[in-house]
Amino acid sequence: MSKTDFLNLCRQVTGADQVITDTDSLQTYESEWRQRIRGKALAAIRPGSTDEVAQIVRLCQQFRVPLVPQGGNTGLVYGSIPDHQGNAVVLSLKRMQTIRELDIDNETITAEAGCLLAQVQQAAADAGKLYPLSLASEGSCTIGGNLSTNAGGTAVLRYGNARELCLGLEVVTANGDIWHGLKGLRKDNTGYDLKNLYIGAEGTLGIITAATLKLFPAPRASCTVLAALATPDAALHLLNAAKNYLGPTLTGFELISDFCLQLVLRHFPQLRHPFRQTAPYYVLLEIASHESQEHAAGFLLDLLEKESDQNQLQDAVVAESRRQAQTLWNLRENISMAQAAEGKNIKHDIAVPVSSIPAFIAETNALLHRHFSGCRIVCFGHMGDGNLHYNISAPEHTSGEIFLKQQALINRIVHDQVHRFNGSISAEHGLGTLKKEEIRRYKSAIELNLMETIKAALDPHNLMNPGKVL
Amino acid sequence: MSKTDFLNLCRQVTGADQVITDTDSLQTYESEWRQRIRGKALAAIRPGSTDEVAQIVRLCQQFRVPLVPQGGNTGLVYGSIPDHQGNAVVLSLKRMQTIRELDIDNETITAEAGCLLAQVQQAAADAGKLYPLSLASEGSCTIGGNLSTNAGGTAVLRYGNARELCLGLEVVTANGDIWHGLKGLRKDNTGYDLKNLYIGAEGTLGIITAATLKLFPAPRASCTVLAALATPDAALHLLNAAKNYLGPTLTGFELISDFCLQLVLRHFPQLRHPFRQTAPYYVLLEIASHESQEHAAGFLLDLLEKESDQNQLQDAVVAESRRQAQTLWNLRENISMAQAAEGKNIKHDIAVPVSSIPAFIAETNALLHRHFSGCRIVCFGHMGDGNLHYNISAPEHTSGEIFLKQQALINRIVHDQVHRFNGSISAEHGLGTLKKEEIRRYKSAIELNLMETIKAALDPHNLMNPGKVL
Repeated sequence: MSKTDFLNLCRQVTGADQVITDTDSLQTYESEWRQRIRGKALAAIRPGSTDEVAQIVRLCQQFRVPLVPQGGNTGLVYGSIPDHQGNAVVLSLKRMQTIRELDIDNETITAEAGCLLAQVQQAAADAGKLYPLSLASEGSCTIGGNLSTNAGGTAVLRYGNARELCLGLEVVTANGDIWHGLKGLRKDNTGYDLKNLYIGAEGTLGIITAATLKLFPAPRASCTVLAALATPDAALHLLNAAKNYLGPTLTGFELISDFCLQLVLRHFPQLRHPFRQTAPYYVLLEIASHESQEHAAGFLLDLLEKESDQNQLQDAVVAESRRQAQTLWNLRENISMAQAAEGKNIKHDIAVPVSSIPAFIAETNALLHRHFSGCRIVCFGHMGDGNLHYNISAPEHTSGEIFLKQQALINRIVHDQVHRFNGSISAEHGLGTLKKEEIRRYKSAIELNLMETIKAALDPHNLMNPGKVL
Repeated sequence: MSKTDFLNLCRQVTGADQVITDTDSLQTYESEWRQRIRGKALAAIRPGSTDEVAQIVRLCQQFRVPLVPQGGNTGLVYGSIPDHQGNAVVLSLKRMQTIRELDIDNETITAEAGCLLAQVQQAAADAGKLYPLSLASEGSCTIGGNLSTNAGGTAVLRYGNARELCLGLEVVTANGDIWHGLKGLRKDNTGYDLKNLYIGAEGTLGIITAATLKLFPAPRASCTVLAALATPDAALHLLNAAKNYLGPTLTGFELISDFCLQLVLRHFPQLRHPFRQTAPYYVLLEIASHESQEHAAGFLLDLLEKESDQNQLQDAVVAESRRQAQTLWNLRENISMAQAAEGKNIKHDIAVPVSSIPAFIAETNALLHRHFSGCRIVCFGHMGDGNLHYNISAPEHTSGEIFLKQQALINRIVHDQVHRFNGSISAEHGLGTLKKEEIRRYKSAIELNLMETIKAALDPHNLMNPGKVL
C-alpha cells in the first residue's frame, strides 16, 4: 500500500478538505512561528473529533507514518513541526475547540485540545472564576499544547504550572486507543499516574485531545509594585519577606536587571523610567486580595514599610490604578522584544533553587564577562519560581551574527553552571529538538534509560513525534 | 544458589542484625497494623542507606526474590505486607530517618523515606515553615509511605495531596539502579515526569528512598467554626460561598452527618453537643490568616453573617480559642473510633466531583435504605475535596458479623454509584490488595493495559511489591 492509499484513507476519516498536501498551504504547519526553520510534511491533517484523531493514529500505525501533533505552534524548542524527511504528517488539533463542560460548583472546566488558552480564561472569567495559566502567547497557544509542554508563565508562584492545573485528560494513545481519563476529582488513588506521564511528554507518548482543568475563585482586587534593589540578594530577602508576610496573596515576583530596563526604555521610547535614580535590579511584585483594593494596597504597603526600615529596599512605585499596574507590567513584558530589537542574542530558559539565584547570577555573570569581555547579560524572569530568562546579547558595536558563533561555548558555560546548582536547562519551554542533545550532557544514563524504556513500551514503532525529547 | 545464600549476601550488605528471620520478630513486618491479616515473609531487611537498598534490590533481582517495601505500615489496603507464600522479603525503610537538607530560602526540605511525617512537620515548624500534609497516622507513618500511596488528609483543599507537595525524588529502580532526582525546582521541563510515576505506585515500580518536599510560610492565625445545616445542598452552597469569599484562606471544609455526631457523643461521653438543637448535617470549616487572629475571625464572621441572611445556615459555633477549635476538631476526628466502638462496619473511601456530593448522598442513601432496611450510614469527610468516608453500620440490634455478609453487595451498590458520578473508589487509600480486583470493574481495559505495559517495562520480573495495585 502506498502513501496515496494512506492519504485517501485519511480523507475518508476527516473529509478531503481537512487533509492538506499542497506546498503553500503546508507552510504554516511546517514552519516554526518565528520562521527560524521549516520542516517538510507529507500532509497536515485536521481531525474534528477525538474519534477522528484515533482513526488517524491507527492509520499512521498501519502505514508506519510518523505523526507530529500540533496545537497553536507557538513553542520555542521546535517541538511541533516535522523534520526534513517529508514522511511525517502534522496532526493539527486546532479544529477541536469545544468547551465541553463548565462545572462551577466543582471549579472545573473541560476543554478540547484545540481551545485557545485565552478562550478558556474567558470562559472561566464569564463564570466568575479564574483559570490562572497566563503566557505571552495566550491568544494563540492551545490547551493541548500548554499541557503537552507543561507551560509555566507568570502565575506559577501562586497556582503552579499547567501540570498542577489539570485534573483529568482524554488521550489518544500511540495505539490509537482512546483513554477516557477526564475526571474532575481532587483525590483519586487508583493506580499509576498516567495523566502526568502524558503531560509534558511533548506528544511523544500520545495525543492529548481534551482536559479537565482546575478553576479558582477570582480575586476581587490586585496591587502591583515595582521595587528598586541593590542586588539579587536583596531581591531574595524581599521575596522571603513577601512570602512570609503576604502568604498566598503573593501572586507574582519578577526580577528585572537594570540592563533589561535600559533596553526596554531604548526601544520603547513611549515608556518612562519609573524611578529618578536607577538601581542595579528591580522586582515587580503583585498581590491579589479576596477582600478589597484597600486591603491589597494596605497589606502590600505594610510590607514595603517594614522592608524599607531594613535598608534592603532603595525605592518603590506602587501602582495606583489598573492602568498604572499595566504600565509597570509593560516594562517586564517588553524585555524580549526590546532585546530582539537590539540584535541577535543567545537565550536560556533556566531554573535553579530559589535560594541559589543570587549565587548563580553572580558566578555566571563573572564567568561570562571573563570569557566574553563586554557581553551584555539580559537577566530577568520568574524569580519566585527560581526561573530566569538568562539571555546574552553581543557586546556593544559587535555584530550579532559574529557573536552567535560563540553560542555553543556560551550555552556550555551557562548550562554547566545551572547543573552545578542542581537546576534545569529548560524550566518552561521543554526539550523539543532544540535541547534534546544538550540534555544528554546533564541527565544521568539511568534517567535517560527510564525515559527510553517508557517510550519504547508505549510507542514501540516510534511514530509519535519522533526525534523530539529523546 | 539457595535462599540461604541470598540471605547471607543480604547480611553482608546490611549487617547480620538487620536481616530478621525469626517468626516472633517478623510479626510486626508481616501483619496489618489492625491485626486483620498476617502474611509470611522470608525475611525482613532493614537497610540503612540508599546504597544498601540498591544492593538488596540487585540481590532480589539476581535470586528472583519478591520484595515488599514497607514504611510505617499504617496503610488501609494491605499494600505493605507480604502475601502468604513466604518467598518475599519485607524491605523496611524505617532506619533511613535523616533529614538531609532544609533550604529555608527555597522553601524545601529533603527527607529520607523512613522519616516520620510528624518529624518533617516539626522540622518545618522549627524553621518557621509549614509542611501541610496532615493525617491521623502522622506520628507513625513515613514520608516514603506518604508518597508511595499519595496520601491525602485534611489540608488537601488548600495544599493538595502528597503528590503536589513533592518536588523531587530519589528512587531505587526495579533494576537496583539509583535515580538521583532530588531537585528542589518549581519548574523543570526536561523529559517525562518520572517523579509522578513513582508517587502513588505503592512500591510496585521502584522504592522511594528520599524526597524533596515543598514547604509553605506558616500562617499566623487560624479560626474554626462548626456550622449546622439542613442538607448537603446547603453545605455545597456554603462551600462555594466560602471559596469565593475567603479565597486561599479557606483551609478546611469537613462534612459530618448528624448520625456521625450522635455516635461520637455516645462513645465519647466527655464531649458535649455543640448545639442546643440537632441538625441533619454539620460542616467544620477552618481558615488560616497571614495577618492576625482578629483578621481570621472577622473574615469568617463576615461570611457567616452573609450566609445566615440567606437562610442556608441554621446555626454556627465559632471557636474562641485554640482549645475550643481542638474540641470542635475532636468531634470530627473521633468519628472512626466511635464507629468502631459501635460495632463492625463497611467502609468506603470515595471521591466524586464536589458538585455531585448532594446528589450522590441522596441517591446512595435511598438505594441502601431500600436494599438494607435500617442500615445506618456514617457519612463524613473532606467535602472540599469531594472525598467522603461513606461507611455503613449494621441496623440497630443486628450483629455486625451477620451484617458483614452483605459487604460485597453493599460495596457493589456504593461503588457503582461512585462510578455513575465519574468518581473514584479509592480517593486517598490506594488499591493495595484490598481493591485491586474491585478496580477492574471500573477502569477501562485501555487504562489497565497502559498500567500493565508500564509495570512490565519497568519491572519485567514482577518482583516489586507483586500482587499490589495490578
